[in-house]
Amino acid sequence: MKKLMLAASSLLFATSVVAETQWRKLDPQNTVLMTLPHGKVVIELAPEFTPNHVARFKQLAKSGFYQGNKFYRVIDGFVAQAGPKDGSEKDKSVSELKMESEWKIDDSWQYTEVQQPAFFAPITGFKKGFAIGLDKEQNRAWLTHCPGVIAMARGNEPDTGSSHFYIVNGQAPRYLDRIMAVFGRVVYGMNHIQSITRTAGVEGEAPLKEKDMIEIVDVQLMSDVKPENRIAIEVEDTDNKAFADKVQGRKYRTAAFFYKKPPPVLDVCQVPVKSRLISTK
Amino acid sequence: MKKLMLAASSLLFATSVVAETQWRKLDPQNTVLMTLPHGKVVIELAPEFTPNHVARFKQLAKSGFYQGNKFYRVIDGFVAQAGPKDGSEKDKSVSELKMESEWKIDDSWQYTEVQQPAFFAPITGFKKGFAIGLDKEQNRAWLTHCPGVIAMARGNEPDTGSSHFYIVNGQAPRYLDRIMAVFGRVVYGMNHIQSITRTAGVEGEAPLKEKDMIEIVDVQLMSDVKPENRIAIEVEDTDNKAFADKVQGRKYRTAAFFYKKPPPVLDVCQVPVKSRLISTK
Repeated sequence: MKKLMLAASSLLFATSVVAETQWRKLDPQNTVLMTLPHGKVVIELAPEFTPNHVARFKQLAKSGFYQGNKFYRVIDGFVAQAGPKDGSEKDKSVSELKMESEWKIDDSWQYTEVQQPAFFAPITGFKKGFAIGLDKEQNRAWLTHCPGVIAMARGNEPDTGSSHFYIVNGQAPRYLDRIMAVFGRVVYGMNHIQSITRTAGVEGEAPLKEKDMIEIVDVQLMSDVKPENRIAIEVEDTDNKAFADKVQGRKYRTAAFFYKKPPPVLDVCQVPVKSRLISTK
Repeated sequence: MKKLMLAASSLLFATSVVAETQWRKLDPQNTVLMTLPHGKVVIELAPEFTPNHVARFKQLAKSGFYQGNKFYRVIDGFVAQAGPKDGSEKDKSVSELKMESEWKIDDSWQYTEVQQPAFFAPITGFKKGFAIGLDKEQNRAWLTHCPGVIAMARGNEPDTGSSHFYIVNGQAPRYLDRIMAVFGRVVYGMNHIQSITRTAGVEGEAPLKEKDMIEIVDVQLMSDVKPENRIAIEVEDTDNKAFADKVQGRKYRTAAFFYKKPPPVLDVCQVPVKSRLISTK
């Protein structure tokens, strides 16, 4: 009595992907290594989409700013948020950034389509490994809030992000699309983000004390990490036929496991973009 | 420079919920305590919707069947799946169940609506704390695959579930709706489910060895747990005006934080249903 629940979905890839998966090496200048007490996390930054926030995050990483910062708001099924102590000198030392929540596109802008119309956007798709939303009437595209994305936290006003960031750890809070600056995504070690101790328990449970919050050991630009300590990752390239075929395979299920076919729609945040470790030698 | 990203969403509840949250006690006869090496998890069963699978899970829990079962397929962003060793005597000792993936409704069937039309269902909503899909033309409703639901695994044929189960740990795999028997949901300790060691690493990383997989200490019916060891939970009642108001508040955002309004649509799996600990004395 083999339990094929998961095997079946692997099988699906095997049968529906005709072209071979294309891989893309991460640029160590735009990749970050976040060291937590319980594991290492690799984040790919998105300089093409969110240049100023990426520049800020890199600058703070280089200066060791995030060492000892705490994950002070960690809500199951929502986000893990970290930063310096609110209102501290360190916190106030960082200037506020102008919002970068979407960018201009024209008709020639290329991407891999996932769904049209979609639920939170006229069109969804992928570009350079990132899930995106598009509005062609407004000539705008944006990075969507899928699990694993990192974005800058802010106050009520749009241009108030500085150094505090959050990583989405649960069902995509897509209502934050286009009003937050998403600037990267976790490509390795998402399980360690999921494991970060929650600060807000079930109601009736005492919230976590500050001393028990998980602390960031360090955030470093991968290019600044000693070669022997780097984690070298390739990610699935999303801008090619193999990935487009995979998307179609997930939308129109053909495996025997699907004895009744699901609706032919696809949640862009439910499309895995694969990563793999590569040798650094 | 207060970072209000999360505070703002709490504020939203405060301003938009006019009626007070209603709470509902869990029935210890239909609640399960799953003890993992690293924490305790409480699962509410759904006997009204999936009676035979609930009866099976309760029977297996009572007999101590799940003691020592391993989480042998744990995929980040998808599911944590456990059960006895595939093809073992223990595995084969359990008979197969007929699928229970949806149920019949009529026009008088009551629920709290979330979205119509929705993305994977003509209508989504809540009933007795569970996220549901509905098709009124087909007179059918079903439990949706939101994060935290527990369902029976199966082979390719529908009527092949027996004892192996999975808990959704990532973005809702809604393409499994209506073809799997969802029979409960985690109401406490979801962080411990999220923390279960992944068995499939990044490609290029060795998969987890069987000896290192997380083992279930025990699954017990809460009514069989010694009173002093019980975890008593109340959950937000979803079948009343306060919850309906909360749903509307999440769909039509009014907080200042939303300086541009998100599309007025709501993902049923992105609506938190609160839990709280209560005293058992």
